[in-house]
Amino acid sequence: MGVEQKTLTFGSFPAGERNLITDVPGVRVGHVTLSDGDVQTGVTAIIPAEGNLFAQKVPAACHVINGFGKAAGLVQVQELGTIETPIVLTNTFGVGTGVNALIRYSLADNEDIGLTTGTVNPVVLECNDGRLNDIRGMHVTEGDVNAALAAASDRFAEGAVGAGRGMCCYGLKGGIGSASRVIEIGGKAYAVGALLLTNFGQTVDLRVGGSPLGQKIAEGPARADKGSCVVILATDIPLSCRQMGRVCRRAQSGLARTGAYISSGSGEMAVMFSTGARVPHYGREAFATTQVLQENLLDLVFRAVADCVEESVISSMLHAETVTGRAGNQGKSLGQRLEECGITL
Amino acid sequence: MGVEQKTLTFGSFPAGERNLITDVPGVRVGHVTLSDGDVQTGVTAIIPAEGNLFAQKVPAACHVINGFGKAAGLVQVQELGTIETPIVLTNTFGVGTGVNALIRYSLADNEDIGLTTGTVNPVVLECNDGRLNDIRGMHVTEGDVNAALAAASDRFAEGAVGAGRGMCCYGLKGGIGSASRVIEIGGKAYAVGALLLTNFGQTVDLRVGGSPLGQKIAEGPARADKGSCVVILATDIPLSCRQMGRVCRRAQSGLARTGAYISSGSGEMAVMFSTGARVPHYGREAFATTQVLQENLLDLVFRAVADCVEESVISSMLHAETVTGRAGNQGKSLGQRLEECGITL
Amino acid sequence: MGVEQKTLTFGSFPAGERNLITDVPGVRVGHVTLSDGDVQTGVTAIIPAEGNLFAQKVPAACHVINGFGKAAGLVQVQELGTIETPIVLTNTFGVGTGVNALIRYSLADNEDIGLTTGTVNPVVLECNDGRLNDIRGMHVTEGDVNAALAAASDRFAEGAVGAGRGMCCYGLKGGIGSASRVIEIGGKAYAVGALLLTNFGQTVDLRVGGSPLGQKIAEGPARADKGSCVVILATDIPLSCRQMGRVCRRAQSGLARTGAYISSGSGEMAVMFSTGARVPHYGREAFATTQVLQENLLDLVFRAVADCVEESVISSMLHAETVTGRAGNQGKSLGQRLEECGITL
Amino acid sequence: MGVEQKTLTFGSFPAGERNLITDVPGVRVGHVTLSDGDVQTGVTAIIPAEGNLFAQKVPAACHVINGFGKAAGLVQVQELGTIETPIVLTNTFGVGTGVNALIRYSLADNEDIGLTTGTVNPVVLECNDGRLNDIRGMHVTEGDVNAALAAASDRFAEGAVGAGRGMCCYGLKGGIGSASRVIEIGGKAYAVGALLLTNFGQTVDLRVGGSPLGQKIAEGPARADKGSCVVILATDIPLSCRQMGRVCRRAQSGLARTGAYISSGSGEMAVMFSTGARVPHYGREAFATTQVLQENLLDLVFRAVADCVEESVISSMLHAETVTGRAGNQGKSLGQRLEECGITL
Repeated sequence: MGVEQKTLTFGSFPAGERNLITDVPGVRVGHVTLSDGDVQTGVTAIIPAEGNLFAQKVPAACHVINGFGKAAGLVQVQELGTIETPIVLTNTFGVGTGVNALIRYSLADNEDIGLTTGTVNPVVLECNDGRLNDIRGMHVTEGDVNAALAAASDRFAEGAVGAGRGMCCYGLKGGIGSASRVIEIGGKAYAVGALLLTNFGQTVDLRVGGSPLGQKIAEGPARADKGSCVVILATDIPLSCRQMGRVCRRAQSGLARTGAYISSGSGEMAVMFSTGARVPHYGREAFATTQVLQENLLDLVFRAVADCVEESVISSMLHAETVTGRAGNQGKSLGQRLEECGITL
Repeated sequence: MGVEQKTLTFGSFPAGERNLITDVPGVRVGHVTLSDGDVQTGVTAIIPAEGNLFAQKVPAACHVINGFGKAAGLVQVQELGTIETPIVLTNTFGVGTGVNALIRYSLADNEDIGLTTGTVNPVVLECNDGRLNDIRGMHVTEGDVNAALAAASDRFAEGAVGAGRGMCCYGLKGGIGSASRVIEIGGKAYAVGALLLTNFGQTVDLRVGGSPLGQKIAEGPARADKGSCVVILATDIPLSCRQMGRVCRRAQSGLARTGAYISSGSGEMAVMFSTGARVPHYGREAFATTQVLQENLLDLVFRAVADCVEESVISSMLHAETVTGRAGNQGKSLGQRLEECGITL
Repeated sequence: MGVEQKTLTFGSFPAGERNLITDVPGVRVGHVTLSDGDVQTGVTAIIPAEGNLFAQKVPAACHVINGFGKAAGLVQVQELGTIETPIVLTNTFGVGTGVNALIRYSLADNEDIGLTTGTVNPVVLECNDGRLNDIRGMHVTEGDVNAALAAASDRFAEGAVGAGRGMCCYGLKGGIGSASRVIEIGGKAYAVGALLLTNFGQTVDLRVGGSPLGQKIAEGPARADKGSCVVILATDIPLSCRQMGRVCRRAQSGLARTGAYISSGSGEMAVMFSTGARVPHYGREAFATTQVLQENLLDLVFRAVADCVEESVISSMLHAETVTGRAGNQGKSLGQRLEECGITL
Repeated sequence: MGVEQKTLTFGSFPAGERNLITDVPGVRVGHVTLSDGDVQTGVTAIIPAEGNLFAQKVPAACHVINGFGKAAGLVQVQELGTIETPIVLTNTFGVGTGVNALIRYSLADNEDIGLTTGTVNPVVLECNDGRLNDIRGMHVTEGDVNAALAAASDRFAEGAVGAGRGMCCYGLKGGIGSASRVIEIGGKAYAVGALLLTNFGQTVDLRVGGSPLGQKIAEGPARADKGSCVVILATDIPLSCRQMGRVCRRAQSGLARTGAYISSGSGEMAVMFSTGARVPHYGREAFATTQVLQENLLDLVFRAVADCVEESVISSMLHAETVTGRAGNQGKSLGQRLEECGITL
């Protein structure tokens, strides 16, 4: 986010160093972007923590805001409160491929899976990029998923990249947006971060910093909202999975601040993990000792997450360039549209 | 809502005749207000439809946004998809009394309950008005509940009345707020309405029409949010209970537009009913024929509800007068605070 | 359970000393039984742990097997994962009174509630005893609830006592049943216990130890099942609330082994708490250190709970005497019916 | 089920003509079985109804009994109450391939998907057959899924076939089991059917017709339960998705009657659809007229489903032959084990 970001603020907590989800130590993000004529899609991989995730899982939770979506792996996250693979984002018809790639990724590192222990639960989330991308072509390959995993780093681009390549948000170009906040708890600084795949809404609804910008810049008749939004949340605060479930439910507040009423066809889902503890696949002890945040202090996290989600939506749009894809359909960037209207944020 | 309302608009659908939940035909609302020194509390009763509600139930659904609350009756609404009593709102420690009153209300009209048929499921929701009201005194009586039921009409007051007497919203005086919208579906006009009991938030977070008004008018250190918000939604559109559950989940978007991130201690819950069908207690036929809205058209209802909820929050504050209650604690009206700050909406 | 118990076994774990839920250290149970002509009802109170429960809550979870019921307090248990009052069982129309009594019980010990801190969440569960009891008379008083609380002890009766006075199970007399198991984990013995309020089913479905006893002893046409079953589970094993939620979901397996298919009108709900940790209302530290059972070891608890629930159903029936109540309706004891049929278990 | 079935009865409703889920008119089932040394796995496809399922969806619901599983598609079934593809069952690591195959299957018949309308929600469920099958080899191909779909018929085999090829149940050979019941409602006969993929439990727990057979035939130390059970339910009774959700929750009762306490590692999930109505993708009318069963009559369905599920478990075992697979591991058939023990059912 260039100049624009400096003038927009979302809440009162300071952003982390990068103002990205990777400000949570250990979190890495990688993209593979497919951009060739009618093919405008990609993969974004989030690696929650260092080391072997199957052997050392991260505590996690999820929340389905609107279940019009095809995510894989959420049922088990809900039941067991852990994530044991990277998280893959891609287009709706790439979910099966994402699942297969994550299985092979996990098998490669874990000889016990499917032999002397159980299986593994791949977590893959998606949005429908069919307006700009030839989604019917099912162009995402396992190789693309592997490449996104291999590219994972603490620095990553926002906008029309990775899984966000073909996504549209508020009728303009969306994609990947991210933000972070630093919270002090018990005298120590912790990070809270969000990464969003934004693909929902109609221009007329867009609010930036509360202001009804969308009403000023909407053009032509609005298309029906067939989108979705994936919200990935991370923190290094030790939280129980019940607490993270509560945090996930605040994602809707952040989305709503940008104008979202959560349309019927838009499958909004939130997933959160904490790096503040690890859950071993083979526990040697009957009981594990864990730390849990005092419930009253959760409000800090709730606020930070609502702010991060709000900012991530806007950030995804401010970073996205105009993309022309399938059948010449265009996802116009917010920046271009603002210029056309002679508006400066 | 006097002059102010005319300048504020929430969304693009027209409001109903009264801009109240009672624009849904058959819905009636009644208040009993207890205001005497340390006692600042009351009861608000919503009667969903004409006739014997136990014998002819209304289809219904609910959604728990944040389960820090003590509502009665929601488990059965969720399971069976019907409401069979009026809905009573009161303070947290009035729930037991509300339950007892609704049982007696239902017994009086139905000689079969508990004898030749099963029991009845009272629906009571609450917020904690302990800052302005001597909630420990448990001042609400069954007589008060009966009086609110008896007072039910299609005209009712908003603001610091009924269950809203002692409630605070965004650090100022809250209470009862309501709004309605008219939607045209299939060439016919339908009504969607909301009634809120608002008791949540800190002043600094308040947004009115998107604008961060709260930052301009906040005074002193914010109190911890121990509030809640009850959202009652009504329509005469025939909706299935699954569809109404989806609608209820959009209430959070409306709340968030006014600045709510849904704090940990604030028990937000939404209940919706439709008067577009009735479910007989004793069905004579093996199968009932019902009408259900086409799923794609739900977006109209989602939008209208988000708008109604947003407006109801602001309306509850604009209608509420300043109330001084327990221990001299004061809930200052938004109007008074705006005047002090020299701000006109 | 007299002679019969010796010949019936449920699973392979040893029972605790009393074979009651009170084998979990600190758990106490008290009854008040109202038995006078048409009035055949009562109250059973479960006190989960020593000391001030509001100040030092117990971790808890719940699961709604069939939501045709009017329990109070479950929404907050689900959200926050704690119980902060005793648990009261009574008839369906006693819930409001139970709520009021628990509020006053909590206010008496906690001057901060409703003044300097929030409110309190009473947990009350119920079954409909309207066949034997004049439930319309609403005979349970706050005094009765207080008396049950005052009577709480580690020894208590099973059968047609307390809240179980007017309950019917499998068409015969039901009521209160309880059982416990001792599990060794990490070289230490822990207790798991169940207390059930049984009020469901038709005689023909009854299975005892798997054997279809009901088919042999059913008489006359079966009455429609308007019942319910409350399942209270306790342990001193440190479990997270997510884990306890999983345990609660195994209660249905125990019920099913006795023949329950969970009829539409029967509101089965399970609540579990652990005394293996306490959650302070005012946490002094930002983070609490807790112990959690290794997930793989949960199977021990699942098995023990299924066995305890199965045994508690049968135990409630074996302990219950024949009760004649409202309008001369009779709940015949299983023992009497077995005698009539010349069957020895 | 040959001779054995005649001596075992499960409940009092008559079975349908085939005693299979395909007694529900329009339902078809097809298998592809892969059996070659270490590869012992397969695919079972359930086609819920005639015609284009995407264009004319079936009302549906699901319930997660124990979320230790990797099913795809359940989130959207829950939200929208419809199924719009065949249902595919396979091994855990075949889910991605099943998803991809169902997408291509749907694309082939629907040129609008991903272009002028949204995407499609494949429903794939799984169990882990890793003990008998080289699950790490990921041997299921899209061609196998297509072949199973092409093989779908109203006659199909039970036992160690299709997705059931490598599954183990109660420590013996499991696989595919099915049963149906005929219910009369309002003077008309309706069918209720179940198809199970059984892969859970330890021999010692097995109960057949209530009798603790497993205790008599268990051999050696029990293996940890890493299994799962998929329950597919079908009917031609018009039911709302809320009602079908209630029916799904009774599947656990049927499983429990065979001895299941639902172990931690066993991902039990139930999916139900009704052919009693179709939900058009493009509704021409604003409102659809639907029929819904009177709630009190649901008990008939609950009973029939519990009976069908109980019978399907036993039927899967009685039909399965002994299978020797990966690393020489053997899934011994119940029949063989009974013979070894000299027991006749």
